[in-house]
Amino acid sequence: MTAYNAPTRDMHFVMNDLGLLPAIQKLPGCEDTNTELVDAVLEEASKLAGSVVAPINTTGDLEGAALENGVVRTAEGFSDAYQQFVDGGWNSIPFDPDFGGQGLPWLVGIAAEEMWISANTAWSLCPMLTMGAVDLLSEHGTPDQKATYLDKLISGEWTGTMNLTEPQAGSDVGALRTRAEPEGNHYRIKGQKIFITWGEHDMTDNIVHMVLARTPDAPTGSKGISLFIVPKFLVNEDGSLGQRNDLRCVSLEHKLGIKASPTCVMSYGDDGGAIGYLVGEENRGLNCMFTMMNNARINVGLSGLSIAERAYQQAVAYARDRVQGSGPDGEPLTIIRHPDVRRMLLTMKSSIEAMRALVYDTATILDQSRREQDPTAQKAAQGRLDLLTPVVKAWCTDLGVEIASMGVQVHGGIGYMEETGAVQHLRDSRIAPIYEGTNGIQAQDLVARKVLRDGGAAAKDYIDEVRMLCQALADAGGDTAASLNTHLSAAADALTETTDWLLEDGSADVSRAFAAATPYLKLFGTVAGGAMMARSTLAAQAALDGNTGDPDFYTAKLMSARFYADNILPQAAGLIAPIRDGYHAVLGAAEDSF
Amino acid sequence: MTAYNAPTRDMHFVMNDLGLLPAIQKLPGCEDTNTELVDAVLEEASKLAGSVVAPINTTGDLEGAALENGVVRTAEGFSDAYQQFVDGGWNSIPFDPDFGGQGLPWLVGIAAEEMWISANTAWSLCPMLTMGAVDLLSEHGTPDQKATYLDKLISGEWTGTMNLTEPQAGSDVGALRTRAEPEGNHYRIKGQKIFITWGEHDMTDNIVHMVLARTPDAPTGSKGISLFIVPKFLVNEDGSLGQRNDLRCVSLEHKLGIKASPTCVMSYGDDGGAIGYLVGEENRGLNCMFTMMNNARINVGLSGLSIAERAYQQAVAYARDRVQGSGPDGEPLTIIRHPDVRRMLLTMKSSIEAMRALVYDTATILDQSRREQDPTAQKAAQGRLDLLTPVVKAWCTDLGVEIASMGVQVHGGIGYMEETGAVQHLRDSRIAPIYEGTNGIQAQDLVARKVLRDGGAAAKDYIDEVRMLCQALADAGGDTAASLNTHLSAAADALTETTDWLLEDGSADVSRAFAAATPYLKLFGTVAGGAMMARSTLAAQAALDGNTGDPDFYTAKLMSARFYADNILPQAAGLIAPIRDGYHAVLGAAEDSF
Repeated sequence: MTAYNAPTRDMHFVMNDLGLLPAIQKLPGCEDTNTELVDAVLEEASKLAGSVVAPINTTGDLEGAALENGVVRTAEGFSDAYQQFVDGGWNSIPFDPDFGGQGLPWLVGIAAEEMWISANTAWSLCPMLTMGAVDLLSEHGTPDQKATYLDKLISGEWTGTMNLTEPQAGSDVGALRTRAEPEGNHYRIKGQKIFITWGEHDMTDNIVHMVLARTPDAPTGSKGISLFIVPKFLVNEDGSLGQRNDLRCVSLEHKLGIKASPTCVMSYGDDGGAIGYLVGEENRGLNCMFTMMNNARINVGLSGLSIAERAYQQAVAYARDRVQGSGPDGEPLTIIRHPDVRRMLLTMKSSIEAMRALVYDTATILDQSRREQDPTAQKAAQGRLDLLTPVVKAWCTDLGVEIASMGVQVHGGIGYMEETGAVQHLRDSRIAPIYEGTNGIQAQDLVARKVLRDGGAAAKDYIDEVRMLCQALADAGGDTAASLNTHLSAAADALTETTDWLLEDGSADVSRAFAAATPYLKLFGTVAGGAMMARSTLAAQAALDGNTGDPDFYTAKLMSARFYADNILPQAAGLIAPIRDGYHAVLGAAEDSF
Repeated sequence: MTAYNAPTRDMHFVMNDLGLLPAIQKLPGCEDTNTELVDAVLEEASKLAGSVVAPINTTGDLEGAALENGVVRTAEGFSDAYQQFVDGGWNSIPFDPDFGGQGLPWLVGIAAEEMWISANTAWSLCPMLTMGAVDLLSEHGTPDQKATYLDKLISGEWTGTMNLTEPQAGSDVGALRTRAEPEGNHYRIKGQKIFITWGEHDMTDNIVHMVLARTPDAPTGSKGISLFIVPKFLVNEDGSLGQRNDLRCVSLEHKLGIKASPTCVMSYGDDGGAIGYLVGEENRGLNCMFTMMNNARINVGLSGLSIAERAYQQAVAYARDRVQGSGPDGEPLTIIRHPDVRRMLLTMKSSIEAMRALVYDTATILDQSRREQDPTAQKAAQGRLDLLTPVVKAWCTDLGVEIASMGVQVHGGIGYMEETGAVQHLRDSRIAPIYEGTNGIQAQDLVARKVLRDGGAAAKDYIDEVRMLCQALADAGGDTAASLNTHLSAAADALTETTDWLLEDGSADVSRAFAAATPYLKLFGTVAGGAMMARSTLAAQAALDGNTGDPDFYTAKLMSARFYADNILPQAAGLIAPIRDGYHAVLGAAEDSF
């Protein structure tokens, strides 16, 4: 596997040239988040990612995590790298300063997180899960709970986990059976949870499990689920660690990838019941969880981008080095000069740049939704965030797999061999379309909750903005802007037409909308990526016209956008028929015919 | 992993209802290849595939192949299964009766082969490679060489391998360096070959390596390559095995998948030179190899279909069993009732049916190209075969990966765990777009040799036939035929437009054609699959109209075609812009900008 070099130049471009940092600086508490500060933070992060976290990615994959007598031994170097991460304060970027956080915007947190995931996806999942626990407790914890857990989780001294899934309860989380019996000021938790990421490990002294369970008289289904804090070690009044709680990791899964990330079967209460503390109200656990999940979905979408970036860097390095064939004068040709290889690399590059811009823009909107003081602006940001979250999650993770697979293809035969590391990216990427709500669930969420529920208002606002970008492209001049305007306009038309169809036919029969959901989300993502490419083109063209900055860099940005315009956006119109007519066969096929 | 049930019903439909067997029966030597015979052969094959070969697929993946003191130990049960395969005469289906073959058409051989690959891809590669060696020797061997090797290779008593690749010589096979020095009636071979599938194993007494090498005064590049037979054990005059030849397997690759198939680094001549026998003329080795490769490419295309079929069967079984959510009356819902899961399953099913029809049709054309006595008909078949071969190879193998990945997705979280076996299909499928000429090479072959070279004649003949099918659909009536006509006509228009562009702009600047090659091949495959869906629809509609056969089966065929029409074919038009305009960025991007 080749080295990882954080793409700080493109990060800087997205944050500054696309106007994200200027928007952030208008938010209360973010006035000082300026370019210099952010560049400095990311420069430091890139050192840790490149020199400490990335080098243990391959070895972690080979070694995996092992369960020995109830203890999970992590791969060589993982614990050291984690300690350096904690010592550097990297876990605390976007969190509340009252509990030791740095109070920086999510935008900065996301950019740093991109680096951890690119460097080492398996390792990065541990802080990603902790972030979820921090989110939950920050939003729903009591002052006491916050005082007990938040400092340690925000510093990274302890890690957090999410315990939702049970064998019979996956996408249908309402089917879960883990029990919680009240006992004094706490509950006794009994049950088994599966697929618990970093559920047990040897990197920290304590692990704080966030567990969904049912109280004895809870209603059935998703309305009878409560959320509990269940620490591995109970915490004494003075904050020191007390007795071991009644929970354990009983086995680890054997997975296609992210092998160094222990995926645990967790058993609670084999010895009488694990002690758990209610978060929020009884039976409102799923609502609490949803606060966290939306944020987590953006993080998982980010992981699609991050693995794609790593796969791309590796593919480019190979393509620059590998000679096959010769040029017109008999000189050896590196494969980066073969048109079909360039096509693959540009597919990867332009998709990555579109994803990065989209994810960072969404992170900026997340910051706005949390910090805007003006209720109208806050509401607008929240609506946009809700709309884009399933798109970011599903579109970026599907692309992540596609791009990692293309990275293998660039390598030819040697790419299929584990020694190159190209296939590790493919293996690692394949989980992201599944967890944190499968991409099918994301698509359902998009059509049902984000488009149909408000009568298409948020979607149409978004499309209006895309059309304004098209107008700006028309005014900008240049070949790239012209091609992008043509294809983005056509794609926006397709999105309008299918949104109208959803509002008409899809609301008349929601199973038609569900049959259309996945191609609709793909269309939405393609347009959203195109919109970011439009903003990128406008910025790059302005920089070139104004002779500011490095012309090679801005020319390359135009080239990525041009590729996206000519090659990716034209696929949008091909999704109209699947959305509009797909239900005929999808709903019509007899069950026995499969 | 679930059991494998050979899809004999659909095979029967493709062979009979689509008119393939009737066409075969018109060929000399195939008069008796009737439905009853073929059904009986496939029924027997399905038993061996389902009860012997399939059950060792998972265990083979877990165990892999191991190199111990120069001997490759194959996984438990592999050798036994191979012996049963040989004893049943399954290796000999399409080969020359003069050397013990059954003289059946390739169509029947391909159908049986689909089963071996579906059952156990890693295992099936061993006979697939032997088939290549038989092809080569049948076409280019001397009478003596045929007498010495063909019987044993056709029976399967010995196996064969192909030795092309060297570290510096992959797609650019002309860069190979293995030497062949003449010595009496043979040559001494010295050099190292990599990626040799089943290059060493313990299933047979002898292995016949077909090795590309250079004689001392050979021209450089691909015009100086000769082909040699290099047996593991030399063969005595009386056919018994003589001394061990100077060749050995020095290591095995660690691969993403097909782990039970030993991929060998082979070293020739460490002890003075391996004895090899020239096949054909000196310096004409690549031409010999190409005879075999075209056939091998159809087999690899078939493997895309076969793994997809296995992944589909497993996904359907899971979707029928897995309950998530509940219906309107609170009854538990199996996920096969969820629209998005049905959409995935229909994507898999309709693509598989299109691929099967296309591959079997191509096999029929292969039979025609080999057996037609009328020179005009023979030439027409050869031209069509040449045109379709790269399409079958690349389109089916790309789809194979996509469908295997979709099979994982249907499973949700558990699909990512190795225990289900869903990811094995993904891992196993990923090699097929790479070997036997990467899919990028196939696309180049399609545009340069198959479209540009004859001025588009073969391509336009093909498109004319597609248009006749559209007309027949228009005449047939029914919703499926109508939708298929609409979308297939539009796709044919796209293929016409882009073929014209290739002939104009692509022949003016071949690097533009190469930049367009991959989307052009995808478009071609999408149309070719649509054409087979049209033939399927016409046959199914006729059967329903005529009240012949099982109406449920034919209705299901219409439903698959309807899905393909509404969901797959509409993507075709989205490929016009990438083909026509993709080169702007592909050729324009600065090399430093990657």
